[in-house]
Amino acid sequence: MITTDTRIPAARLAAFAARALVAAGLPAADAEIVASLMAEADLRGSDTHGVIRLPIYLRRIRAGGVNARPNIRVIGDRPSAALIDGDNGMGHLVMRRATQIAIDKAKATGIGWGGARMSNHAGPAALYAMLPLDHDMIGIYFAVGSNNHLPPWGGAETLLGTNPMCVAVPARDEPAIVLDMAPTVAAYGKVRLKAQRGEQMPVGWMIDRDGKPLTDPKRADEGYLLPIGDYKGYGLSLIIGILAGALNRAALGRDVVDFVKETGKATNTGHAIAAIAIDTFMPPADFKHAIDGVIRDIRNSQRLPGVARIFLPGEQSHTKYLDRRAHGVPMPKALRASLDAVAREFNIAPLE
Amino acid sequence: MITTDTRIPAARLAAFAARALVAAGLPAADAEIVASLMAEADLRGSDTHGVIRLPIYLRRIRAGGVNARPNIRVIGDRPSAALIDGDNGMGHLVMRRATQIAIDKAKATGIGWGGARMSNHAGPAALYAMLPLDHDMIGIYFAVGSNNHLPPWGGAETLLGTNPMCVAVPARDEPAIVLDMAPTVAAYGKVRLKAQRGEQMPVGWMIDRDGKPLTDPKRADEGYLLPIGDYKGYGLSLIIGILAGALNRAALGRDVVDFVKETGKATNTGHAIAAIAIDTFMPPADFKHAIDGVIRDIRNSQRLPGVARIFLPGEQSHTKYLDRRAHGVPMPKALRASLDAVAREFNIAPLE
Repeated sequence: MITTDTRIPAARLAAFAARALVAAGLPAADAEIVASLMAEADLRGSDTHGVIRLPIYLRRIRAGGVNARPNIRVIGDRPSAALIDGDNGMGHLVMRRATQIAIDKAKATGIGWGGARMSNHAGPAALYAMLPLDHDMIGIYFAVGSNNHLPPWGGAETLLGTNPMCVAVPARDEPAIVLDMAPTVAAYGKVRLKAQRGEQMPVGWMIDRDGKPLTDPKRADEGYLLPIGDYKGYGLSLIIGILAGALNRAALGRDVVDFVKETGKATNTGHAIAAIAIDTFMPPADFKHAIDGVIRDIRNSQRLPGVARIFLPGEQSHTKYLDRRAHGVPMPKALRASLDAVAREFNIAPLE
Repeated sequence: MITTDTRIPAARLAAFAARALVAAGLPAADAEIVASLMAEADLRGSDTHGVIRLPIYLRRIRAGGVNARPNIRVIGDRPSAALIDGDNGMGHLVMRRATQIAIDKAKATGIGWGGARMSNHAGPAALYAMLPLDHDMIGIYFAVGSNNHLPPWGGAETLLGTNPMCVAVPARDEPAIVLDMAPTVAAYGKVRLKAQRGEQMPVGWMIDRDGKPLTDPKRADEGYLLPIGDYKGYGLSLIIGILAGALNRAALGRDVVDFVKETGKATNTGHAIAAIAIDTFMPPADFKHAIDGVIRDIRNSQRLPGVARIFLPGEQSHTKYLDRRAHGVPMPKALRASLDAVAREFNIAPLE
């Protein structure tokens, strides 16, 4: 796990992000919530969804594309479900609020569901799906991706996104099972990484406008991501888009705004979170013990030749979390330079 | 859609299945519920999950593997979630009851969740996910598959099944969107069909014990199904197994009983159903109108060269439904012969 990158304690990363967000106009308490969720993403190894996104978040706030001081409020309310209007605030604030509402409702009724509209990019799905774990609940999260890279199966128009879903299940002595996935074979960030490194993509990640395999990541704009399981991944992306987007009167399909290209425009991003209280079904301690057993059965099961270890969903992120909490978050030079540029732009103390 | 098979009106199929189930010991009212759900499966084109399963269901009832007169009861109850013990009754009865409970809870609180344990094979997932549609709700269904054919990613032991999930979303003028899928590239029934027809399987459906592609369906017992999206499909199968199985104290992993091979043994099959009331979020008529728009945007979007039509999830099943409701369910000779054998065995009037 040792890399040649400098390591930065997560608390210092969070403090820097909070300074920048305050400088951009967020109230201090809100800035701290967003910054600590961003650092949490980096701790869990979500290198493409943590502090690396700070510059684009700040650019969007400056351009008026994100409301720095939103009035987040519940606009639809039933005992076990709610619709939350994020007032175009930072997605982290909106989804933390929506998740808290879902947890409260699950405590009261057994299951709680929070849908959010007029939200924004909120970082990795696991941040929210994992919040119910401490309350002996299972968390389920869906979101509409921040831009469209996926056509319907057979299609040549990117009406759908890499809409992510995450399910988090608590265990007792083992780390929680956390499945955090997009319904495409490759995430778009992986395509960008291949381009940066001058590498080719494997066949199966993307196709071009003729439906032929596209392997040159520099030509990614001319092609489409492929869904997992062909029509199945297309169906999953659509369903996630409906649960997170259409059901919340949030953007889906042609209404999706590319949040990098159109920095001044509200995205009306939609998300959904569900919390399922385990105590309807059995004492939570029994459930978590049973999940430990499931985890160990899988980990210790027979392996194919050449396979060194069978991983559970979320296990590798958990290992990164332990390493990074102890030794800090790796800070590549390019990321450090972009955060230094933020410090100069906002006239704040740089990352220590 | 015209085939050379005889067509049988669904009502006659249902009447025959009901006669057989009564002869096997089910109360008449229960037999009618099960039989009509089985015929409904055939109407929607689920040829592998409808009346074709009648002989194995009857064999299991006769062998004592299924309880013909169960006391289905709620053993965990919160305002929006319930755990239902099926007392080893027919899965159709258990899941119809669980779904009704979920719908009632969603009416009262906004979302309802029903988990089931000690249930059995219940036919295709869409049967239950679609029940909430008429109540202006979205339906979500998960089940633990009736046998294990899928190893964890990298594994060589079939600890997981083709655990199906289904999400049904109502539209207004368009047919509902119904995504009914297993997290494996191919269903096991498709493998059996290839074997019957003497055809090879495409690379990507299965691997052998060395992890090499397995294309001879006659050797299927020596290999493993492949999940969609590699580790992603493995994660989906596990999560569906937890939500439908472990959470309900139902079988998962090594506890799963092969319901075809072990006819005398209770399977403790688990399922879960959620119903989400749309009126928390907006007037249902507005939502259904919006979904019509999503459907049409997708159907009418640009296509790849050579693609004649873009389908929505569930659209082809709906087309079959319209055709079969009008012209009857195709009755291949082999199926007719197996139903005639049932008639002789139970001394009931044969299928007319």
